[in-house]
Amino acid sequence: MTLQRSSANGASMTGALRRILHSGELHFALEAHDGMSARIVERAGFGCLWASGFALSTVSGVRDANELSWTDIVRMTEAIADAVAVPVLVDGDTGHGDFNIARRFVRKLELAGAAGVCLEDKLFPKTNSFVGDDHALADVEEFSAKIRACKANQATPGFCIVARTEALIAGLPLEEALARAEAYRAAGADAVMVHSRAPVADDILCFAREWQQRLPLVISPTTYCDTPAEAFRSVGISLAIWGNHAMRAAAAAIDRVAREIHRRESVNDLDTPLARLDEVFDLIGYDELEDARASYGRPAEVAPS
Amino acid sequence: MTLQRSSANGASMTGALRRILHSGELHFALEAHDGMSARIVERAGFGCLWASGFALSTVSGVRDANELSWTDIVRMTEAIADAVAVPVLVDGDTGHGDFNIARRFVRKLELAGAAGVCLEDKLFPKTNSFVGDDHALADVEEFSAKIRACKANQATPGFCIVARTEALIAGLPLEEALARAEAYRAAGADAVMVHSRAPVADDILCFAREWQQRLPLVISPTTYCDTPAEAFRSVGISLAIWGNHAMRAAAAAIDRVAREIHRRESVNDLDTPLARLDEVFDLIGYDELEDARASYGRPAEVAPS
Amino acid sequence: MTLQRSSANGASMTGALRRILHSGELHFALEAHDGMSARIVERAGFGCLWASGFALSTVSGVRDANELSWTDIVRMTEAIADAVAVPVLVDGDTGHGDFNIARRFVRKLELAGAAGVCLEDKLFPKTNSFVGDDHALADVEEFSAKIRACKANQATPGFCIVARTEALIAGLPLEEALARAEAYRAAGADAVMVHSRAPVADDILCFAREWQQRLPLVISPTTYCDTPAEAFRSVGISLAIWGNHAMRAAAAAIDRVAREIHRRESVNDLDTPLARLDEVFDLIGYDELEDARASYGRPAEVAPS
Amino acid sequence: MTLQRSSANGASMTGALRRILHSGELHFALEAHDGMSARIVERAGFGCLWASGFALSTVSGVRDANELSWTDIVRMTEAIADAVAVPVLVDGDTGHGDFNIARRFVRKLELAGAAGVCLEDKLFPKTNSFVGDDHALADVEEFSAKIRACKANQATPGFCIVARTEALIAGLPLEEALARAEAYRAAGADAVMVHSRAPVADDILCFAREWQQRLPLVISPTTYCDTPAEAFRSVGISLAIWGNHAMRAAAAAIDRVAREIHRRESVNDLDTPLARLDEVFDLIGYDELEDARASYGRPAEVAPS
Repeated sequence: MTLQRSSANGASMTGALRRILHSGELHFALEAHDGMSARIVERAGFGCLWASGFALSTVSGVRDANELSWTDIVRMTEAIADAVAVPVLVDGDTGHGDFNIARRFVRKLELAGAAGVCLEDKLFPKTNSFVGDDHALADVEEFSAKIRACKANQATPGFCIVARTEALIAGLPLEEALARAEAYRAAGADAVMVHSRAPVADDILCFAREWQQRLPLVISPTTYCDTPAEAFRSVGISLAIWGNHAMRAAAAAIDRVAREIHRRESVNDLDTPLARLDEVFDLIGYDELEDARASYGRPAEVAPS
Repeated sequence: MTLQRSSANGASMTGALRRILHSGELHFALEAHDGMSARIVERAGFGCLWASGFALSTVSGVRDANELSWTDIVRMTEAIADAVAVPVLVDGDTGHGDFNIARRFVRKLELAGAAGVCLEDKLFPKTNSFVGDDHALADVEEFSAKIRACKANQATPGFCIVARTEALIAGLPLEEALARAEAYRAAGADAVMVHSRAPVADDILCFAREWQQRLPLVISPTTYCDTPAEAFRSVGISLAIWGNHAMRAAAAAIDRVAREIHRRESVNDLDTPLARLDEVFDLIGYDELEDARASYGRPAEVAPS
Repeated sequence: MTLQRSSANGASMTGALRRILHSGELHFALEAHDGMSARIVERAGFGCLWASGFALSTVSGVRDANELSWTDIVRMTEAIADAVAVPVLVDGDTGHGDFNIARRFVRKLELAGAAGVCLEDKLFPKTNSFVGDDHALADVEEFSAKIRACKANQATPGFCIVARTEALIAGLPLEEALARAEAYRAAGADAVMVHSRAPVADDILCFAREWQQRLPLVISPTTYCDTPAEAFRSVGISLAIWGNHAMRAAAAAIDRVAREIHRRESVNDLDTPLARLDEVFDLIGYDELEDARASYGRPAEVAPS
Repeated sequence: MTLQRSSANGASMTGALRRILHSGELHFALEAHDGMSARIVERAGFGCLWASGFALSTVSGVRDANELSWTDIVRMTEAIADAVAVPVLVDGDTGHGDFNIARRFVRKLELAGAAGVCLEDKLFPKTNSFVGDDHALADVEEFSAKIRACKANQATPGFCIVARTEALIAGLPLEEALARAEAYRAAGADAVMVHSRAPVADDILCFAREWQQRLPLVISPTTYCDTPAEAFRSVGISLAIWGNHAMRAAAAAIDRVAREIHRRESVNDLDTPLARLDEVFDLIGYDELEDARASYGRPAEVAPS
């Protein structure tokens, strides 16, 4: 296990995301929100991580309304990308401002080790797509120009920009979603994401059939989660993102263990499952540090503070 | 629910920690490592949070060997303190360097909303107390001077410095632990923590009886966790810290959910418990934002990005 | 000299700014952009510092178009406030987003040691007031609501919010500037700033006469800098801000010394004036560290790394 | 002018530093401490910048005793490297801890756009080499292991580690300095820096003659600054660093302008030279933003905040 993985090989990571998007098969990404969750999700077999703005906000204790600054997102992305050897796709919201802020933000994400970013055609500051009904969209040309600006400013050729349309979230018809996706493709987007909060996947599947794989297609089946993966495969979707489940599993488990410990005044024989200390040490690579100390350290080096 | 809680009332939080330490009763603190876990632990009823260096490192994907810088710890503390209205006691390790760095670090923690810090008499960079056998201690006078320097530099009178001796971890006898505790008391510490990784609490209980409550006593029953709380009460311990259980519950749950989703290619009807979206919105205070929008926002404010 | 000054006594600093604004006399603030410039400006006798967004951007090597994130501004403010014992008024631009981001940003500035913030009624992202002609203004009610939101969320009563109208910069008549100032006063602003880039001060002086000191009045005489201070005094202005002169003096001097050293391949007997090393040590308080080492340090403490 | 320069082409920057070190000619680096000073120094013709720990500390308002954390240094380095297209050599002090912290710090510097780092064989926390007489050195083998650890962990092959010996500062004989330099060469250092605070360059010149260009040699002629560059050329020195002159020129100029403005209550016709606003806009590349707005922006995009 090396010390810091993906930032070292950002180029290979962007290549890996590109391969996933163009593989012709359905891949899955699971949300991760810090170094630990990133490493666990990678270990479980996921070939791609989703750095969700909603999850990053939630674990930070703030609302998914751009209460984190764009530099906060960059720093959190860096910790995630450092922890894993699989590509990290970052939820970039609207880009946190105009084309100029967006291109600066996106490039800093890239330099922090992200393999790609997803930008959505909403207004800044954003509102979580699952909250409320006020989801006004950005002007198509303006958002297309933002994508062009970000593409023109990226540091490495492989970095991917996924253009996400919230047209369906905003209650607009399928045609509008398709027209926007086409505009973003023409602007240089590397993939298109179409978002929906309908309880069924009909719109998404229709979109995919009409889209005809003009660019790789990305979805996030949160509300229509009972649609089987086979349905997504059958319409040629490239990447399905499970958008917030690591965070929500953590929240539930912390809630359970906190209540249990509080009630019992003890951590002995808890019902809530805990990772053992040696599992944590293994996950985070304490063995590498031990080996390195054998190579580079010596007793006297541990020094008076 | 206010926007940001404890940083606003740092002074009242330091008072709250002081009251806990001097209440004459046994209190409990549970580890929290980010804003979300902090809020969950507070909601479960804990009157004090422990910002564990081990947990902060682990969720960041790095080892508990000062791989996080002291400013990283300050920023993470700020997110935790902002999220809750109960006092946060921060694991300050050795203070991250000499007395001068330690006093700067401690004051920045205080200004970030911490109610207190725990400093330990080991050498920088530290090794996790549960890893390996090389736990050389700091010189007593040097560490005492570090405590004096931090006390002299604090911004508000109520802020608490807990001096933690690792004498038992280092394999030294009880007398050494007591002598060090007394020296740190004389140097101005507000409480003493004695740490042990023995499987039974004998040393800790002996220490407490000999100590005679000269200052409030703090423990962290990790390895001797089958000792009942009653035993700690009977010897007058003020605060027992459950040091890493929120993080370990989160790790186990994320691991479970990631494997389950990967295997099933679906998030439908998962066996792993998840916090519902509305529970997350409630936890993080989306209602306050909705109310605020009614007071301060207007449709046109949601602006083109 | 203490270690960190103003953050410790944020409350007294906010009181100091309030006293300056309500003294009935004309005070001056000079721009500072980092800890060193802050301390030099304080030492020169200024009772108030201006943390200019333009200067902070410039020294960071970026444009004054919100290329710095709001958390970047908070961190830079902290370094400035830590360095001095006089109040720091921060240029908050538009608040970096809607009322919700603005109130979060403003409170973080306050907790970082700022005594006040200046918010302007332009659109995010902002354009430097001296660049171009596209200076569309925010809606009056929306901006007023932003001020109310920030006032309602501040941590200490003394913190000051200065509402700055760019009506004159936008080419609007004096009446509009006055109407906006009155609206912001009604919304709870602690002072009003009126900005102009006219070569003469006529508009500003007219404004001040009409305003009748309903609230303290702040100006920044950059383009109309040949107007004597007496003119500002005669119309009851409270604070005149010299907005970018420390940065511009630094830029000129660095340019000169860099060219001179490059040409001469030597730093011997330079024509460009340099602060002597002992002056730098004195400015930054090395004496305090030496004293502290005598109290708290010891030879063995300087430890193997 | 591009938006962000060197981070994009870190690899070419490390190549550029390597070429400078191996050119067989004497090159010069001048200190820069932020984005603005970096760009000015580059424009004056310097082919290499020195991110001095002393200057970074001073402009931050703190002492050169590791009062900045290593992540502070990384962030400041990023701003400097982003601003220029010439290589940045960073003053890494002792590496801010043991080999493990050092290798993490160094790799983060590399990913932030630095072309190289200079590590010195002193103890953490460091004392400025020009202050006091307590300059105990690190153990040779320990410091050599630190260099090996950093070299093994770097992300790109071209990144340079300059091993700096403080043997002469510590009052040790030339033989010790040479023996240490040789040990660091054997450990994999890419260049050697020998530091002295003697008023004359005799030691340095002797060292260089004995060294025989086994590796490129770097010096910083601060106290022996009246030695002509020809003397350095004659002994085959590769790089001479002017270590703090941009910061000291800025300090002197800010002091002058602050006193002048305070005395005159005016910024009209100042004696202190100021960069004009248009010069600042030109330096920071406002033209690029204007061009980009023509390509990517549109009136409606400047949005209500």
